[in-house]
Amino acid sequence: MRNLSPKSLEDCLTRIFKASGIPEEKARIVAGNLVRSDLRGIRSHGVNHFGMYIEFARLGVIDLKGEARTIRESPCTALIDGNMNFGQIVCREAAELVVKKAKECGVATVSIVNCGHVGHLGDYTRMIVEKGMIGIMFVNTDKGVAPYGGKDTVLGTNPVSVAIPAGEEAPIIADFATSATAGGYILYRLRMSEEMPEGWAIDSSGNPTTKPEDLFKDTSPPVKWGDNFVGAILPAARHKGYALALIADVFAGALSGGRCNGDVIEGENGVFMQAINPEAFIPREEFEKRVDMLIRACRRSSPRPGFDKVRIPGDPEREAEKKAWKFGIPIDEELWEELVELGQKYGVDVGRIVKS
Amino acid sequence: MRNLSPKSLEDCLTRIFKASGIPEEKARIVAGNLVRSDLRGIRSHGVNHFGMYIEFARLGVIDLKGEARTIRESPCTALIDGNMNFGQIVCREAAELVVKKAKECGVATVSIVNCGHVGHLGDYTRMIVEKGMIGIMFVNTDKGVAPYGGKDTVLGTNPVSVAIPAGEEAPIIADFATSATAGGYILYRLRMSEEMPEGWAIDSSGNPTTKPEDLFKDTSPPVKWGDNFVGAILPAARHKGYALALIADVFAGALSGGRCNGDVIEGENGVFMQAINPEAFIPREEFEKRVDMLIRACRRSSPRPGFDKVRIPGDPEREAEKKAWKFGIPIDEELWEELVELGQKYGVDVGRIVKS
Repeated sequence: MRNLSPKSLEDCLTRIFKASGIPEEKARIVAGNLVRSDLRGIRSHGVNHFGMYIEFARLGVIDLKGEARTIRESPCTALIDGNMNFGQIVCREAAELVVKKAKECGVATVSIVNCGHVGHLGDYTRMIVEKGMIGIMFVNTDKGVAPYGGKDTVLGTNPVSVAIPAGEEAPIIADFATSATAGGYILYRLRMSEEMPEGWAIDSSGNPTTKPEDLFKDTSPPVKWGDNFVGAILPAARHKGYALALIADVFAGALSGGRCNGDVIEGENGVFMQAINPEAFIPREEFEKRVDMLIRACRRSSPRPGFDKVRIPGDPEREAEKKAWKFGIPIDEELWEELVELGQKYGVDVGRIVKS
Repeated sequence: MRNLSPKSLEDCLTRIFKASGIPEEKARIVAGNLVRSDLRGIRSHGVNHFGMYIEFARLGVIDLKGEARTIRESPCTALIDGNMNFGQIVCREAAELVVKKAKECGVATVSIVNCGHVGHLGDYTRMIVEKGMIGIMFVNTDKGVAPYGGKDTVLGTNPVSVAIPAGEEAPIIADFATSATAGGYILYRLRMSEEMPEGWAIDSSGNPTTKPEDLFKDTSPPVKWGDNFVGAILPAARHKGYALALIADVFAGALSGGRCNGDVIEGENGVFMQAINPEAFIPREEFEKRVDMLIRACRRSSPRPGFDKVRIPGDPEREAEKKAWKFGIPIDEELWEELVELGQKYGVDVGRIVKS
């Protein structure tokens, strides 16, 4: 494990992206998103995706000339065609648009079709919460998850994020896969040859398994998703996570006129984004007072055996970020070697640029 | 166990309600909601709540003269004061309003403060889906659930419902508590002296328990909620259900200017309701085609060992309803006796009115 300086890591990713043919401005935005994910301790959506993004651009899954365009609009809604630009860029633009509309209308909703892989959702709902609004986001992804009671992969890990502004307290930022775990954590266990906890997955017979290799036909890296599955990831909380995954698939995939029902291709996401201005309903100070009280009531709760304290969603990421700014971003050796190799391929001296 | 005719049961509940002092029109709507819940197999929100509702009206928690009033409004939002009318009546009015607004604006959002206990949410999101729109509902309830990692009750079982219209297929109707189980199922186990499955609850030390009596100070019926808890119900799926419970508390409680953070009183709910008209984004047939495909892809999945087939959310309720219309609504003897006693108290001959 190495602890890397966030700034130098971002700089290095940007340089490799650029050397691989990605325009500098786009490279910088996507690299920033990946590093922020690792900074927040979300290792499933950070630098581990770096090589995949280069591959998406090389294969044309990401269109380097693509720019998002609003194709249908009302005062409180918009349908955006992402034209297969990087999801990080499309979603930042969408977050700005949804906030602008919610300022005017109270609640605004944006649907995005043909959007590149968006990374961790919390990056965009945080943009909405920073403007004093509730941010909601659903994304549908390529298949890997079985419906509740089934053994075939029909759904994606279909994540959801909701960010809620508080008054004096830090905001609530929920950001999670509707499946038992995010795909990145399965691949991490596979890379590290570690078993998975029970309840994450089933093998090709539909029986529980803790072996990540039971999930795939071909485990050689980069491990493919979609048709490479022989087992399946389970939904979180049985029928409840299954319902949430269906909701995400409809909100993000069907409503945008994009792909859904497991037909989503790797590297493409459908997106649903909403901003709710609390002031459309009650005075801001009334709202913030209530959210602060809720957060404090949770924090005041005595911890259960096995826990040091009660956290609110967003706390673990804030704690990780504080630590990472101080001690660096922890990157395992396997990922570091992948980074060094990519640097060599594109003529960037990773070891020289990235500071520990 | 008795199997009762739905029509005669509804008639009987209406008569007892009326005899207890509840105006007939209100009595009929609430009784209908309770019976529909049992018809759909949702035994946690059906006739088991009947005595509680009479008590709420008797104690003045429900204001029998209360009528809902819109106190703030924009083209796509409304804040409604339920004035402690029955939640069943307030929510039906709110569902009509949110559909009307979504027809005009594409997406409409309604927040309700001072709303009586609403019963099962699916009754209202079904009203929205019947108008061809996606219906979303969050409700916050009185405390009984610990935050993830904590042992004190801060949150309610805070349910969520999302209903999604399909084309040729029956709609997707998700309706579940964000906690490991709904409160009604805890009370049912207590009444039947049955143990709970693991993962539902913790005792006063924060350790897992399967004994429903470990949750309460006083287990004599009617079992009180709120300050009567010594243990706690756990959130569904650890931090994920916890996040959903916080979201419901903020959406339904804070946004409406009502109570939240465990301060909700028994018999009162905060409500968040939203309707999304798919046509605001894409042509209806395009949307319906995608939802049908999604539903069919789930149904086509081979079942896992232990399951006969894959269902979509809403299927179990449809199956229960079909069976109940044919064979009657199953009511356990304890609940039947409670009903007979209530009938005696208010001069209604339950045994004569309710057909088996």
